[in-house]
Amino acid sequence: MNSNRRERSRRPRIPQAAIRRLPVYLRELEEAVSGEERVVSSAELSARTGFTSEQIRKDLAYFGAFGTRGVGYDARLLASQIKRILGLTHSVGAAMIGAGHLGTALARFSQAEHKDIRIRHIFDKDPAKVGSSINGVVVEPVSTMLESLRASGVRIAVIAVPETDARTVFAELLAAGVMAVLNFSPVKLAADGVHVQNIDLTMELESLAYYAQEGVDR
Amino acid sequence: MNSNRRERSRRPRIPQAAIRRLPVYLRELEEAVSGEERVVSSAELSARTGFTSEQIRKDLAYFGAFGTRGVGYDARLLASQIKRILGLTHSVGAAMIGAGHLGTALARFSQAEHKDIRIRHIFDKDPAKVGSSINGVVVEPVSTMLESLRASGVRIAVIAVPETDARTVFAELLAAGVMAVLNFSPVKLAADGVHVQNIDLTMELESLAYYAQEGVDR
Repeated sequence: MNSNRRERSRRPRIPQAAIRRLPVYLRELEEAVSGEERVVSSAELSARTGFTSEQIRKDLAYFGAFGTRGVGYDARLLASQIKRILGLTHSVGAAMIGAGHLGTALARFSQAEHKDIRIRHIFDKDPAKVGSSINGVVVEPVSTMLESLRASGVRIAVIAVPETDARTVFAELLAAGVMAVLNFSPVKLAADGVHVQNIDLTMELESLAYYAQEGVDR
Repeated sequence: MNSNRRERSRRPRIPQAAIRRLPVYLRELEEAVSGEERVVSSAELSARTGFTSEQIRKDLAYFGAFGTRGVGYDARLLASQIKRILGLTHSVGAAMIGAGHLGTALARFSQAEHKDIRIRHIFDKDPAKVGSSINGVVVEPVSTMLESLRASGVRIAVIAVPETDARTVFAELLAAGVMAVLNFSPVKLAADGVHVQNIDLTMELESLAYYAQEGVDR
């Protein structure tokens, strides 16, 4: 199945870091549009995002030729092009696995801030949580996750379960046809043909410690 | 004060991305040590982390000459050197601002997973939460944050408060002498001489959407 997917692939492999910068560009372009700036240069985009102009031009070049040399990018047009690249031209559904503190916080965040991606499912194994509602989404039992995700066709999932449950949940998500996973558990998860983004909050804290030292350039 | 800090700086400016990879290397080296692997090559470190050997050698070269050409790195030695670079040779204290779902989840994570960085303070403005305890840390009122942080000398803080409170909290953290901030609020925060790492969870979800499309190499 994975090899089929690979053969169908028509785009070159884009570095993950470039994909992760696209939403940052999108955010700034949307701010520019709402501030009635029609054209944004890569230098301005650089000042607003902290990435170099070269980096921005290189990232965008993976997807085609955008902007006019010496002028800049049409902010509204580039924003819609980035949305198309990210597959965000229509609202996309995602599933949250785990309705503990982290899952609840993430589900609320996403519903409040965001219209492009909607949490459509929240699953938990705790019967006391099943049936309750988080920002309008009813918590489903994790035992019915496979059929529920297959029925709705949701392909994005966020893993916010304890370490001990992460592998089982991941295997079920694969069986349900999920293609992109944001993993907050400390377990490293990987499988062919599925994109996994691991966010390890303790590592984020460790890199912060570097900057808390005397004599370090911040 | 900032210019003083800059003058005291003795290290070259290291790319943030390199600093953020150090904890990943550290984790793998510690796993190697506990698996009784004495020597780890950059190729092995590459296979374990997903970063290229060149990237790994370049990151480490910012800090000195490590390892033996054609042999590899002494896993235990390199782990202790990375800990020294990150300032994690002794347990480092951090403060969590906000005891909502996100703050509680993060505080529990950090206490459970981590010995190098300890959440020493949790602050909240809700009187109903003040005095309660999360993993052994008593929630303090945010009104006493400035004096409490000055007294304890904690320099690392995590902002997990609603958008409306983020700027006020950030200003107080600066006044308290905090030097490194992990910001989970959607407000962009920045100040001279302070390192701010913004984690925007909605942007993480947006980049995930890219990989949920058909015909995309995952």
